[in-house]
Amino acid sequence: MLVVSAHAADYVWRAGGTIAKYIKNGAEVHLVVLSFGGRGESNDLWKQPGATADSVKAVRRAETQAAAEILGLRNIEFWDLQDYPIQTDEAMDERMVRKIRTVCPDIILTHDHNGKDVLNPDHNYVSQWVFRCSIMANSAGVRMEGLPSTRQMRLFGFEPHQTELSGFVPGSFVDITGTYEQKVAAMKCFKAQSHLIQYYTDRAFLRGNHARRISGNQSYRYAECFSNFFPIVGEKLY
Amino acid sequence: MLVVSAHAADYVWRAGGTIAKYIKNGAEVHLVVLSFGGRGESNDLWKQPGATADSVKAVRRAETQAAAEILGLRNIEFWDLQDYPIQTDEAMDERMVRKIRTVCPDIILTHDHNGKDVLNPDHNYVSQWVFRCSIMANSAGVRMEGLPSTRQMRLFGFEPHQTELSGFVPGSFVDITGTYEQKVAAMKCFKAQSHLIQYYTDRAFLRGNHARRISGNQSYRYAECFSNFFPIVGEKLY
Amino acid sequence: MLVVSAHAADYVWRAGGTIAKYIKNGAEVHLVVLSFGGRGESNDLWKQPGATADSVKAVRRAETQAAAEILGLRNIEFWDLQDYPIQTDEAMDERMVRKIRTVCPDIILTHDHNGKDVLNPDHNYVSQWVFRCSIMANSAGVRMEGLPSTRQMRLFGFEPHQTELSGFVPGSFVDITGTYEQKVAAMKCFKAQSHLIQYYTDRAFLRGNHARRISGNQSYRYAECFSNFFPIVGEKLY
Amino acid sequence: MLVVSAHAADYVWRAGGTIAKYIKNGAEVHLVVLSFGGRGESNDLWKQPGATADSVKAVRRAETQAAAEILGLRNIEFWDLQDYPIQTDEAMDERMVRKIRTVCPDIILTHDHNGKDVLNPDHNYVSQWVFRCSIMANSAGVRMEGLPSTRQMRLFGFEPHQTELSGFVPGSFVDITGTYEQKVAAMKCFKAQSHLIQYYTDRAFLRGNHARRISGNQSYRYAECFSNFFPIVGEKLY
Amino acid sequence: MLVVSAHAADYVWRAGGTIAKYIKNGAEVHLVVLSFGGRGESNDLWKQPGATADSVKAVRRAETQAAAEILGLRNIEFWDLQDYPIQTDEAMDERMVRKIRTVCPDIILTHDHNGKDVLNPDHNYVSQWVFRCSIMANSAGVRMEGLPSTRQMRLFGFEPHQTELSGFVPGSFVDITGTYEQKVAAMKCFKAQSHLIQYYTDRAFLRGNHARRISGNQSYRYAECFSNFFPIVGEKLY
Amino acid sequence: MLVVSAHAADYVWRAGGTIAKYIKNGAEVHLVVLSFGGRGESNDLWKQPGATADSVKAVRRAETQAAAEILGLRNIEFWDLQDYPIQTDEAMDERMVRKIRTVCPDIILTHDHNGKDVLNPDHNYVSQWVFRCSIMANSAGVRMEGLPSTRQMRLFGFEPHQTELSGFVPGSFVDITGTYEQKVAAMKCFKAQSHLIQYYTDRAFLRGNHARRISGNQSYRYAECFSNFFPIVGEKLY
Repeated sequence: MLVVSAHAADYVWRAGGTIAKYIKNGAEVHLVVLSFGGRGESNDLWKQPGATADSVKAVRRAETQAAAEILGLRNIEFWDLQDYPIQTDEAMDERMVRKIRTVCPDIILTHDHNGKDVLNPDHNYVSQWVFRCSIMANSAGVRMEGLPSTRQMRLFGFEPHQTELSGFVPGSFVDITGTYEQKVAAMKCFKAQSHLIQYYTDRAFLRGNHARRISGNQSYRYAECFSNFFPIVGEKLY
Repeated sequence: MLVVSAHAADYVWRAGGTIAKYIKNGAEVHLVVLSFGGRGESNDLWKQPGATADSVKAVRRAETQAAAEILGLRNIEFWDLQDYPIQTDEAMDERMVRKIRTVCPDIILTHDHNGKDVLNPDHNYVSQWVFRCSIMANSAGVRMEGLPSTRQMRLFGFEPHQTELSGFVPGSFVDITGTYEQKVAAMKCFKAQSHLIQYYTDRAFLRGNHARRISGNQSYRYAECFSNFFPIVGEKLY
Repeated sequence: MLVVSAHAADYVWRAGGTIAKYIKNGAEVHLVVLSFGGRGESNDLWKQPGATADSVKAVRRAETQAAAEILGLRNIEFWDLQDYPIQTDEAMDERMVRKIRTVCPDIILTHDHNGKDVLNPDHNYVSQWVFRCSIMANSAGVRMEGLPSTRQMRLFGFEPHQTELSGFVPGSFVDITGTYEQKVAAMKCFKAQSHLIQYYTDRAFLRGNHARRISGNQSYRYAECFSNFFPIVGEKLY
Repeated sequence: MLVVSAHAADYVWRAGGTIAKYIKNGAEVHLVVLSFGGRGESNDLWKQPGATADSVKAVRRAETQAAAEILGLRNIEFWDLQDYPIQTDEAMDERMVRKIRTVCPDIILTHDHNGKDVLNPDHNYVSQWVFRCSIMANSAGVRMEGLPSTRQMRLFGFEPHQTELSGFVPGSFVDITGTYEQKVAAMKCFKAQSHLIQYYTDRAFLRGNHARRISGNQSYRYAECFSNFFPIVGEKLY
Repeated sequence: MLVVSAHAADYVWRAGGTIAKYIKNGAEVHLVVLSFGGRGESNDLWKQPGATADSVKAVRRAETQAAAEILGLRNIEFWDLQDYPIQTDEAMDERMVRKIRTVCPDIILTHDHNGKDVLNPDHNYVSQWVFRCSIMANSAGVRMEGLPSTRQMRLFGFEPHQTELSGFVPGSFVDITGTYEQKVAAMKCFKAQSHLIQYYTDRAFLRGNHARRISGNQSYRYAECFSNFFPIVGEKLY
Repeated sequence: MLVVSAHAADYVWRAGGTIAKYIKNGAEVHLVVLSFGGRGESNDLWKQPGATADSVKAVRRAETQAAAEILGLRNIEFWDLQDYPIQTDEAMDERMVRKIRTVCPDIILTHDHNGKDVLNPDHNYVSQWVFRCSIMANSAGVRMEGLPSTRQMRLFGFEPHQTELSGFVPGSFVDITGTYEQKVAAMKCFKAQSHLIQYYTDRAFLRGNHARRISGNQSYRYAECFSNFFPIVGEKLY
């Protein structure tokens, strides 16, 4: 599994429980954090006297690493792009294609592709870009010495902060009852965004309610929700 | 699995391969054929000299049974409603709720729920109605002596004849490579709708192409496509 | 303000804070409870030994009245329709038109009109029906002795339980910080649906977060969200 | 061409210019007026002292006939259903199927099918119903002595009063520059809805502007706009 | 209030009445005209013999200033970007963020954000860009010496020329009866687009009709319509 | 007619029959092939030992020319852009505007504009870009020595590979029964994409079925389907 997070904490709020669960079950999970979110998602840090771009970045890096450790995530790369807005060029395309081919993931988790995050243009940009890079990675004509094209992987999208306004369509719920405590602990690392901890704690509870209602499985207590970039394909109906 | 088909042949064109596969894998599959499609889907039969409602119905029944036998389907009920338009009343509601509670299915397969079949109002009506009955079946307050409420099951929708015009959203592809020959043989039972045999043969090929493209699994040769009434819920991402 | 609730508790979960606030501010609020939700929303009550339709109904009535009292709601009518499914006829049309013309509301609050509640067909039915009756009430040609036609009122829709799946489009947020405690107390009257109390408590918190984010007003702590049946019309931009 | 109008004046506001043009060019046009709009669209008539259902109906009938005469329309039937709400039963289904088979139209013009008229539930109901009847008329299995099934005709929808709120999708513009004066004269027959005359005069001007912009044909001065029930099919691209 | 207009006349056609009203009521309104529309919206000016980019621009500037004066608008900036296509870079981002922080508006009026103007790609581009800049302006991490981050403002979108084709969703109507004459006078300054004066005069009349119908307030004679970038948030239901 | 194809073979799969038909009927058809599809659509060619960008390109060029010859297409330009991703700059804008003004087409055929090709970002990019260039070509203010602005032409979009997932809305069907054999022969030129030949052969059959069903014209055996960038405008209803 490859996780691409626009800002430092995105992957924790929206997918921390699922990532922890995959790791617990033995999956190899790789994380790319594109930016530290210094401009877009560190409002509280900038309120501290003497805050500078570097000091903010240092805090965010430390928090992200602490959170990742709690989730069991070992393979992290910080690409340290500027955010607000995040922008990429051809060299960055190549870097991402290379990353995808190196990891060769079954699943890519990134920002939602179908809707449009109404509060965060970076999320939309990153989603489109990761998707485009995945298509390039899968294409034999995009040549890279020693890195053959990948097989079509599955892609899933994080839910945005305000789902209905952002056209988010729930596609898959993952039960995170077993890793919920880990997720809460990981969220608590982001002291600058403390108001979000309660938010995503409550959301996991609501998603758990949804998961029970539509599956009939009463054992689900907490869940995370993702959009499906593609329909489900398989040997039966899931 | 419970399959509810508005007209006699609907379940074969859209889900014959999947039904055969489930049966092959040991599932218990029940079929309710609501109408023989005598008014809406038997144009060719009516061209035969001396055709009457009864003669048309008799042909459709025989064809449906022959097709079901080929698919391995043993549990069939013909409810013999009039079609064009299919209409239901409270007694029919109760009959369907009773059927659902008796079968206690994990999966209900019926007509598409999200879109609107632009060529066949019966399909829309049946889809809404089956869905409503499933909710009643799941509700403890809808009392039936000896038949407790069911647990929330999964529901999937057949693809309509002209998918794009009908707002059909593909949710799940099922590989039917292993039962494709059975499906073709079953379709051939419907002599009055011979033009549809080529149609759904081609469609299985196209859906196979789609299934390969979005899954990367090159072993899929033929597929059927369904809409998801609900998101997928589970222990991982499918 | 006229509130039309399909089942006994709907108005509390989705609009209790707003109703209490309007009453606090001196508005005259009328409530019509169409059904006691005995079949559709009383699963827990039916688990009690010896439960009957009448005993369930009696509990629901008592709970609803207790909740209404907490909210300050004095004008309640129980129409005692069967639910699952709720159905109406011409006499019921006339009764609702009569009610609307008698109350002459500035605002009607009922179930969401734009989307489609994916878990509760009664909500969709009631929404369409109330809307149709409001149009009849406003039409001078629908004659009722002594009850002249009403002026076009504003209509707003409750949010459904699973908003994204139901195509709910948030149109208006109402700050309920000042009546949140009342709402929580009112919700606690519904002992048979205790799992929903935590659900709608959390949701009020999330909606408060949304309200702050999109308005910039940091004083909002809890909020309720509604769909707009019509655009906002006025002397300025709200 | 068969035109089915829910209320007495609908066909004039939305399609008067097109109808006049078809007649001018030699087409045979049949009109069915389902209701006189006595309850829903005669507010001004009811303001007159001593107005009764019968007096309102008489005025509407006279106005409709006068308007039809101006447009050159000779084949009119008044079915005199109640409106607000318009409702149909099986006998009415049969009557409409019979009408369609008798006229055997190339084109059916009626209310919009894709969207949802946000101000007039009758329009939605009629549109769905006419469409369903057209499908029954085309089906050989719906037997009627002496009236063989029709060939699939084209269907187009009137634009509703508030197009954007009603999800109206413009599909076809018809230049009515040559019959615009006739349409204005016909509209003036409806004295009880005088505020609509200016409205639909302005709209014809706006639609003319749209028609010029998207076609590049500067000779179009006035136009009417319709939704397409189906895609355009033909020997070339129109 | 900050108004951002892609081309010189956009703000007059779509929002002239609202702007005049806000000014009349004492609001401070700032206008940024991004381009003179020399390439995209001056077809008639180019028909004059000897027209050059400079002569066209001079006419447009004079017309825009005359129109602004009629509306009472004093704070105008012409950024003189090329149009068809309008493009922006990082320096322009900074300029806009700086402008927003300097004005510190409660409301930003610009092109529609939800839909897609089917006839004018510049409008779509500008809308996305202004929105992105507003988010940057609100973010404490986007540092500008002496210009603190703004509080989340409300944003509203102009209606595009062909609303239905452009996916425009009416969100708010503003009564402009009191400033309608000013708007007409301001529109008449744009001699090169004389065909649009009638168009937007008629549209104000139609929007007035809509405003009356959905509000029940019969005093509205002319109105302008806007899309809401966000739901309405407040202490009550508007 | 001007056809703009993102990659070498796109125009054949999706529009080969229509192009051949127009040519047969005497139309002048111009084709611009933006890229050879060396990176994105030549997976099979890259499997050949010793394949290089140049060898792949040479094969694609030869195949495209052979296919064009079969369709009767004489006016082809290869712009030889890189694909995956295709990108354009200002010079390319000017080149396309110049091309459009030189050809002065009644119809532009290119990739779909309304939806979003879920498997091929190049298609989306090209569609937006061609559309923007068409608007510039039509604008008198975009000055080009000796090339006056064009009159608004009609634009139609190719259907994408997976239509439902890409939000494709069928707008126009063209009967290609008379040129179907030519299309099949042209498709067979693309040996590297042999799996697509069966795919688009089947699709032409399915589209023929759709065309018959919705038009009632039983003579259509094969068809191609396009989206409409604009509504149909004309003297009657098509």
